[in-house]
Amino acid sequence: MDLTSLRPLAEKLFADIRALSFDGVGVTRASYGAGETAAADYLRAFALSEGLRVADDRAANLVFGQPDADPAAPAAWTGSHIDSVPQGGNFDGLAGVVAGLLCLVARRREPHGARLPLEVVAFRGEESAWFGKAYMGSGALFGKIGESDLALKQRSTGQTMAECMREAGADVDAIRGRQWLFDPARVKAYLELHIEQGPVMVARQLPLAVVSGIRGNVRHNRIVCHGDAQHSGVVPRWLRHDAMFSVADLIMRLDEHWRVLLERGTDLVVTTGIVTTDPDEHSISRIPGSVRFSFEARSKSEDTLEAFYQLMRAECKAIERERGVRFEFDRRLLSEPATMDERLCGLLAQACRDVGAAFETIPSGAGHDASLFANAGIPSGMLFVRNQNGSHNPHEAMEMDDFMLGVQALSDVFERLD
Amino acid sequence: MDLTSLRPLAEKLFADIRALSFDGVGVTRASYGAGETAAADYLRAFALSEGLRVADDRAANLVFGQPDADPAAPAAWTGSHIDSVPQGGNFDGLAGVVAGLLCLVARRREPHGARLPLEVVAFRGEESAWFGKAYMGSGALFGKIGESDLALKQRSTGQTMAECMREAGADVDAIRGRQWLFDPARVKAYLELHIEQGPVMVARQLPLAVVSGIRGNVRHNRIVCHGDAQHSGVVPRWLRHDAMFSVADLIMRLDEHWRVLLERGTDLVVTTGIVTTDPDEHSISRIPGSVRFSFEARSKSEDTLEAFYQLMRAECKAIERERGVRFEFDRRLLSEPATMDERLCGLLAQACRDVGAAFETIPSGAGHDASLFANAGIPSGMLFVRNQNGSHNPHEAMEMDDFMLGVQALSDVFERLD
Repeated sequence: MDLTSLRPLAEKLFADIRALSFDGVGVTRASYGAGETAAADYLRAFALSEGLRVADDRAANLVFGQPDADPAAPAAWTGSHIDSVPQGGNFDGLAGVVAGLLCLVARRREPHGARLPLEVVAFRGEESAWFGKAYMGSGALFGKIGESDLALKQRSTGQTMAECMREAGADVDAIRGRQWLFDPARVKAYLELHIEQGPVMVARQLPLAVVSGIRGNVRHNRIVCHGDAQHSGVVPRWLRHDAMFSVADLIMRLDEHWRVLLERGTDLVVTTGIVTTDPDEHSISRIPGSVRFSFEARSKSEDTLEAFYQLMRAECKAIERERGVRFEFDRRLLSEPATMDERLCGLLAQACRDVGAAFETIPSGAGHDASLFANAGIPSGMLFVRNQNGSHNPHEAMEMDDFMLGVQALSDVFERLD
Repeated sequence: MDLTSLRPLAEKLFADIRALSFDGVGVTRASYGAGETAAADYLRAFALSEGLRVADDRAANLVFGQPDADPAAPAAWTGSHIDSVPQGGNFDGLAGVVAGLLCLVARRREPHGARLPLEVVAFRGEESAWFGKAYMGSGALFGKIGESDLALKQRSTGQTMAECMREAGADVDAIRGRQWLFDPARVKAYLELHIEQGPVMVARQLPLAVVSGIRGNVRHNRIVCHGDAQHSGVVPRWLRHDAMFSVADLIMRLDEHWRVLLERGTDLVVTTGIVTTDPDEHSISRIPGSVRFSFEARSKSEDTLEAFYQLMRAECKAIERERGVRFEFDRRLLSEPATMDERLCGLLAQACRDVGAAFETIPSGAGHDASLFANAGIPSGMLFVRNQNGSHNPHEAMEMDDFMLGVQALSDVFERLD
């Protein structure tokens, strides 16, 4: 099946959804929030107009299928997520959903010889930017969202995850009960197309890449360093309990450990994405009494995550002793690393060759919904499409040429799966 | 003149003004804002009820005097400021105004032998917390507030300093012209009573202290470190331009220089009171693209201020090269150090001895309106009153016993001045 003629349709879908979630700078589609729901409603109407089957699952994700296929039968699955970070880009997540829909539309419009029916899922709530928790929509299907997650608050509105999920139509009681809302026997394989979010493919001039595995991460959304707020002019250095100098000290210790671990060949990235003195009491002439910050480490190795986390806690204890401050931690969040299925990686590589795309097999630094399928024992694979300017910012830029190559490769794999 | 009987009046003045500016946590009297004006209105009504003369100067400061004294004649001056930091304490500034008023009330109620009339000034806008600029009310009198200051914006309301000054009744055009709004020949001496804002007097069990000089400072309200916002999982360490790691690096370099300079006996304190990633775009899974922070160094030595400032700029340049970021600086603000008048220090010391108070002569780490008088060549002196728990926080706690000792000493000096 040749999907070249669907390119104008792909362009229209991206343009329409960008327009309805544009925030003046980038796109904003909050997890289980307004922009995400607007995108879902648009996709539902589009799919119905194409004669596809559309259903909401119990986590309020959308599932699209062939109208002639039994929705309970084993199938090949594909998809990605439709939310975005605040002021994010249009392609992170959405590209994978559009790719899946194009494959379905192609099957609906012309005869095909695929042995497995195709199901396309549009996940909600993949981004951790809103509740400090990632994979909400996919995680809920696998019983991975519990009471304490549901109580997390949305960064802008302060609404709980439970409230937002309920408004979107999810069965929050079932989610809270950590039931599996999803029969893994229905999924013979899960494939996800996603833009690359790092600089590697641009640097190596690769339109496509096969993903070997996905980094996991360990996080705290909110660590607070408590010091002693005092007039800045009158407390000498040795009597200070400066929360900001303490956090800067911690960051520089982590930076040094990170540098040394990299020289030993360890896979690791470390980020403090949010750092802020207390806006209600900070001033230029006051020693900061408290600083709030986030912590994240990512690695392909769960051992590395655990070891670096313990190093971080040990450095906090040392700084507490040296600077007379106190670190307070919220709940630790862990996302396990995931390995992609070898056979699917081989099929994806063959499909890349068949469409004539230069490609390599690389690890994913970012997390993806596919990791939940992989860690549930479902054969999973991922295809990256080249993307300029990184991700989680308004400047991400995927070329349609690259995207259509990826869609063709994906479709080819689905035709071969059994 | 014995002022012991005025103690209940002092208690009432502090309690009433605390009540009208209590914010639920501490007191909030914004510079040229609502809480400050409420305190000014209260003091005006009180002074008129005591038969004192009250006038507003052209910077909207209040000036209280004896009704029988020529307001243009040379006089002894005292006073302090009536604004506070957000959620601050009740005594920082207000104590000096109440002390002056008690001296005036005592003169009004009973005969006195003083040779110089006494004028008491209640300054507005001493705290830099609101506009990032200190000594607005006193500075305006000495032509030290110009166009660029007047354009500074209030941290909460976003109103400009010019707008706020005009609302309070100040002559903004005269201030903008940097005219002296004040005839220094009218001031034979300026004395200011103020709470100590550091921990020294409590530690040394001194109810009073004579101030030898006042630390100056060099500041930036707003330095922005520009990096590159990217998805946290996908950019390796050597390709990152992390604005937060860069600012942490700068803070730790300054901390190390500071430590070394202290070991050489240099007088210095360093503070980054405000540090924040961009709330509109930061998230746990994003490398911070920009961090805004404030910088302040204080010293008794202007040479030290200049040298440390140049060191800070040099470290910023080094970090720009090493981490691929860019530092952007707003206008540098400098408050000169000030030296107190030797003869006035002697008179204050003698008065402390006469009231039987243990005292020492110490430098002031915090800035005060008195520094402007001193640097304008007017003989100036300061008396510190012991205060628990530091300042610029809601927990400051001056004992009334200590305060009344200070008021008595101040009044005694005014009786001896000529």
